[in-house]
Amino acid sequence: LFHYLALLINSTRCREGSRFARMCSGSGVWAGEEPLASCHSLVDLTDPETTMASDLKRIGYLGETPCLHVKNPLSAHFELHIEQGPLLEQREKKVAVVSGVQGMRWYEIRCKGAEGHAGATSMDTRADALVPLALFTVKVEELSRREGARGTVGVLTTATKSPNTIPGSSFCTLDLRSTSDATLDKIETELTSYLIQLEKERPGITLVIVRTWKKDAVVFDEVARDCVKSAAVQTVGESLVDELISFAGHDSAETAVVTPTAMIFVPSKDGISHNPSEYTSEEDWYVIIIHIVI
Amino acid sequence: LFHYLALLINSTRCREGSRFARMCSGSGVWAGEEPLASCHSLVDLTDPETTMASDLKRIGYLGETPCLHVKNPLSAHFELHIEQGPLLEQREKKVAVVSGVQGMRWYEIRCKGAEGHAGATSMDTRADALVPLALFTVKVEELSRREGARGTVGVLTTATKSPNTIPGSSFCTLDLRSTSDATLDKIETELTSYLIQLEKERPGITLVIVRTWKKDAVVFDEVARDCVKSAAVQTVGESLVDELISFAGHDSAETAVVTPTAMIFVPSKDGISHNPSEYTSEEDWYVIIIHIVI
Repeated sequence: LFHYLALLINSTRCREGSRFARMCSGSGVWAGEEPLASCHSLVDLTDPETTMASDLKRIGYLGETPCLHVKNPLSAHFELHIEQGPLLEQREKKVAVVSGVQGMRWYEIRCKGAEGHAGATSMDTRADALVPLALFTVKVEELSRREGARGTVGVLTTATKSPNTIPGSSFCTLDLRSTSDATLDKIETELTSYLIQLEKERPGITLVIVRTWKKDAVVFDEVARDCVKSAAVQTVGESLVDELISFAGHDSAETAVVTPTAMIFVPSKDGISHNPSEYTSEEDWYVIIIHIVI
Repeated sequence: LFHYLALLINSTRCREGSRFARMCSGSGVWAGEEPLASCHSLVDLTDPETTMASDLKRIGYLGETPCLHVKNPLSAHFELHIEQGPLLEQREKKVAVVSGVQGMRWYEIRCKGAEGHAGATSMDTRADALVPLALFTVKVEELSRREGARGTVGVLTTATKSPNTIPGSSFCTLDLRSTSDATLDKIETELTSYLIQLEKERPGITLVIVRTWKKDAVVFDEVARDCVKSAAVQTVGESLVDELISFAGHDSAETAVVTPTAMIFVPSKDGISHNPSEYTSEEDWYVIIIHIVI
C-alpha cells in the first residue's frame, strides 16, 4: 500500500529547498499546489546559470511522465520520517502518529540604503542598509517568542565586502511557522508594519518584503491516522505510541490536499536535525516496518 | 618637494583593505608601524589560496627595495585627497588644511551556536548564531551615536545558505572611529561587556571579538600644516581655505609617526565616497596644484 512516487520525485528535486529555494517542490507540483513552470525556473542559489529544469535535463530526469496527481494518482500517502525534535526521546516513546503539519511561510527581505565611507560619514547622515535588517532579525525573534511561533532569519548578507564601507544594500530570508494560520497572519502584519516604521525613521532607506512561499497548516486524514495508530500499537505496544504535530514541512503537507495522508515519526537523538549530528538509531528505524491495513 | 613613494607603494597593496583586510598596509610597513611579514601573509578575502606576498610576486612587485623609512626616508610627506565628507561643499570652501586623523580600530566578531531545523526547534531551545550579531549591530549604532563616534558593521555573514536552517555560526566586522582615543576605549569596553552579557543570556552561544587593527588619533606636524596653509591661501585666497580633521584613514596617519606630515583636502560632491557616485570636479582638483615651500 505504500506509494513512494512523490518521495522519489522529490529526491531529485531538492526537497529541502537549500539549492533551489522552494521546499517540497516535487510533491507540491504533483498535488497541483505549485505551478510546474515556476518550479522548473527556480535558480540554483550557488550558480545563477542553472535552473531546476536545466539540471533535471542534464542528469536525465526530465522525463515525459506527468508530475500531477490526476495523471499519476495515489490511493493514500504515508510518510516515514525522523521527528526532528526532542519530544519522543524525552517522553520515552518509539513511534508518533502525526496529527498534522504547522503552517509555514517564506519571505525575502531587501534593504536599500547608500554606500558610504565608514569614517567620513557621520551617524546622522548615513543610510546604513544593514542596521534595519539587524533590527528586523531581533524583532522576528521577539514576536515569534511572544506568539509561541517559530521565526528564523537563516540567510543574511550585505552587498559590501569591505569592512570600512557602510552597507548600501542587504538581503535576508525569513522562515515563519505556527500551528495557527491566524498567528502567522498576525506576525506577518506586525513585521510589515515594523518595516514601514523603520523606513519612516531612517531617511534614504527602502525596505521590501516579499512572501515567496506559503503553506497553510494541515490536519491529516482521520482514517489514515487511525491506520498508522493501530499498526503502531500492534508493533510496539500502546505505551510507546505518541501523537505529535509536525513542526517541519513535509511532502505529506502537499499530498494531504489531494489524497488521504498520514505520517509516522521515530525519535531524533537530542532533537537535532539539519545538522551533521542528526541521528536516529537503527533499532528505532526498524520500528517503522509496521503493517498498515486500510 | 613631494614624495610619492609611500603612495606608490600603497597603490599595489590594496590601500583600502577591501581585498586584503588591513588598511594602509604599505605605508604602515614603511613607517615601521606594521610588521612586513604579517602584511605579506594577509589572505585575499575572496580567494583563501592567495596571500599579499604571493600576489605581489605574481604581478612582479615583490622587489628587493626595503619598504622601511630608515632605508628609504622622506624629508616630509604631503598627501592630496578628496574630503570624503560634505563640509567643504557646505561651507563653500575650496581647500582644507587637515589638522589630523581620527583614531580607528578594526574588529572581527565570531558567533558560534548550533545549527537546527527552523520548524522543529522551538524558540526556547535554539542557539541561533545570527540574532546575537544582529543585537551587536544595533548596539554599535546606539553607542556610536551616543558617544559622537562612528561605528560600522560592514560585512556580516551567516554560515548557512538554507532559509530553513537556524544559523550555527556567523561573522561580522566592526570599524570604529573617533577623534578621541578615550572614546574608542569606552565603546570597546562596553561592546565587549555586551557580548559577555549576550553569552550569559543565551545558552549554547559563544561570542569572540578580536581587534585586528588599531590606529590612534594623529595630530599632524605644525610646520607642515603651516606650509599647506600659506600655500593654499596664496593659491585660492584666505576666504576659501578651511581647517578640517580627517574622519577617514590615510597613509599620512602612518607617515606622521616618522616624518613631518600634512594633508590637503578638496571638496567631495554631496560628501559621497566609497561609492560609484563619488565625484570631485576637475576644477576643484586643479586647486591642489599649489606651491608648498618649506
